[in-house]
Amino acid sequence: MKFPEEDSNKHTFAFNKKIMFENKTQRTELSEIGEFGLIKHIEKSVKTFHSETIKGIGDDAAVIESDGKIKVVTTDMLLEGIHFDLAYSPLKHLGYKAVVVNLSDIYAMNALPKQILVSIGLSNRFSLEAVEELYSGINMACEKYKVDLIGGDTSSSASGLVISVTAIGSAENKNEIVYRNSAKENDLICVSGDLGAAYLGLQLLNREKKIFLENPKVQPDLSGFDYLLERQLKPEARKDIIKQLKIAGVKPTSMIDISDGLASELFHICTQSETGCIIYEKKIPVDVKAAELAQEFNLNPTVCALSGGEDYELLFTIAQKDYAKIQSFKDISVIGNITNKSDGMKMSDASGNEIELKAQGWNAFH
Amino acid sequence: MKFPEEDSNKHTFAFNKKIMFENKTQRTELSEIGEFGLIKHIEKSVKTFHSETIKGIGDDAAVIESDGKIKVVTTDMLLEGIHFDLAYSPLKHLGYKAVVVNLSDIYAMNALPKQILVSIGLSNRFSLEAVEELYSGINMACEKYKVDLIGGDTSSSASGLVISVTAIGSAENKNEIVYRNSAKENDLICVSGDLGAAYLGLQLLNREKKIFLENPKVQPDLSGFDYLLERQLKPEARKDIIKQLKIAGVKPTSMIDISDGLASELFHICTQSETGCIIYEKKIPVDVKAAELAQEFNLNPTVCALSGGEDYELLFTIAQKDYAKIQSFKDISVIGNITNKSDGMKMSDASGNEIELKAQGWNAFH
Repeated sequence: MKFPEEDSNKHTFAFNKKIMFENKTQRTELSEIGEFGLIKHIEKSVKTFHSETIKGIGDDAAVIESDGKIKVVTTDMLLEGIHFDLAYSPLKHLGYKAVVVNLSDIYAMNALPKQILVSIGLSNRFSLEAVEELYSGINMACEKYKVDLIGGDTSSSASGLVISVTAIGSAENKNEIVYRNSAKENDLICVSGDLGAAYLGLQLLNREKKIFLENPKVQPDLSGFDYLLERQLKPEARKDIIKQLKIAGVKPTSMIDISDGLASELFHICTQSETGCIIYEKKIPVDVKAAELAQEFNLNPTVCALSGGEDYELLFTIAQKDYAKIQSFKDISVIGNITNKSDGMKMSDASGNEIELKAQGWNAFH
Repeated sequence: MKFPEEDSNKHTFAFNKKIMFENKTQRTELSEIGEFGLIKHIEKSVKTFHSETIKGIGDDAAVIESDGKIKVVTTDMLLEGIHFDLAYSPLKHLGYKAVVVNLSDIYAMNALPKQILVSIGLSNRFSLEAVEELYSGINMACEKYKVDLIGGDTSSSASGLVISVTAIGSAENKNEIVYRNSAKENDLICVSGDLGAAYLGLQLLNREKKIFLENPKVQPDLSGFDYLLERQLKPEARKDIIKQLKIAGVKPTSMIDISDGLASELFHICTQSETGCIIYEKKIPVDVKAAELAQEFNLNPTVCALSGGEDYELLFTIAQKDYAKIQSFKDISVIGNITNKSDGMKMSDASGNEIELKAQGWNAFH
């Protein structure tokens, strides 16, 4: 092959084996560096050639400028057995969720999603009717959020179902975009909705699946947990919050969507903004039912909010002067404020003790 | 869950089972309708909400307009065991190819690729060093074609390697874009480079892999087949052809890239343009070495060109008046012309007999 540094006669079989399995002295496990470490590693080797690429790797979405107009682009891949379990994820819900998690990233840039592309890999156990179910969910999300499905790819898959979605959004100009790296000391830390419920919905589904597998005649009783199940299986993106803030004339100083858990997202904002933070445990919004279920599972509800993930709420910071404009908003909680970098990332717990926050972001490679 | 037509109490386990396995009377196998059938089926249910979406599903890439400026977007997913075999695909080549096949779709719209997003799903058999290899190929393609890697997603995978690439390109204005559906009767049918070599490279690799598996001590002798192997493992996108045509002042009347084989791509152009075509077997460019190897495999070289696929050459039509402008171009062959729809899709074979062309496009679901 004609890669410059390679001898074209060296084409030998199973040459990946050495890198993948045998070369023990140089083998670094992905679990050692984790997902964030891997992304950083990839980012280091990236060069850009076009001045219109104003933001590449490192935020919820990339940002492209052309003649003053802004496009933001993001992509997310969902894999069977990793991101979803078809035993309890209805295909329609799955299609809906695959779209929504991408739209959430666009809103987190303070932009509006306009188009999506959807690629699917399907094994032959899927029928046309199954694919129709999946797309009915995709189309429903498109309808609700007013986005156009403009393309994609269909392929067979040797194993599980794979769904890859790319979302494209737009903003009127560069100044509308909100990044992760622009929080300032004393800014207020805000979060929309409530946290931890999606994670608890997942725990519930996994527990009931186990019972079901042991005795398939018993249909699990999930009644009363609709909200938690919906948070896990059919989340929504916070289009409404973006709209409210715009109407109120508040531009967040930084923003991110909560996909990996509050602690992890705070970590991104503070690291990229070179700040510290203090949040108050009592202020973290947790749904009553979620808190109850957490107790049942011997879990601390705060830990579920900090490290559970998949809430798809917005975490953002605002200047103190804007507090009056948002204080009456029902679905926004102020949970703390940005501090100096030297103060670190702290949480003041229910008893008033300050504890250090750790970004326990979901480690994709374990 | 709150899908309007559903009763929220109906959340039962294994509900996908019915659709996927049990509901025999309504089960339509994907292999019955094939990939193109599936895409058509999906397309039918799609609505668009934004006037800036000027072309959705149905071409090499989607087209978005904002204030006169054009963005084209395409996405392709490569799955281990379907699109590549790690026994003989070096990871660096694979990364390179994953990018190039997407860029090819952008060029096929007569646009210039500017940015890509790359998502990968990795099982734990992959080390950091393996991922570095993959990205060294991705970065090399970015460098060669001057595109910016601006984002993506990394995830673990329960089984094989998954690579999903989205490419974004731009064009100065709407009129520059070339679609599949605008070929006119009497237009000349042109193809760049040569066809069938990638398919024969694959046959060769598969044969040698079989020998290798039977006796791993024998390293296969692939010398002398560099060109065919390169066509399969490290294809290039025809940026040069787009540039040449622009300099010559020729705008193709329709264009598509050859990923599924000449017959299949001609089928797309003729169907969407509502025309017929006639091509001449003798004019189809086939590499000498590829033709030799085809004989060795008892394959007809023309069939390899018509249905082999993965050549990533450009198939395009031009108005007859433009012939003089391109006739001296070494790497463009005129292979026939567009006819009336009622004439059907024909090939005049080496003996001058007209045979009907069938789109044998790669059936992804078999």
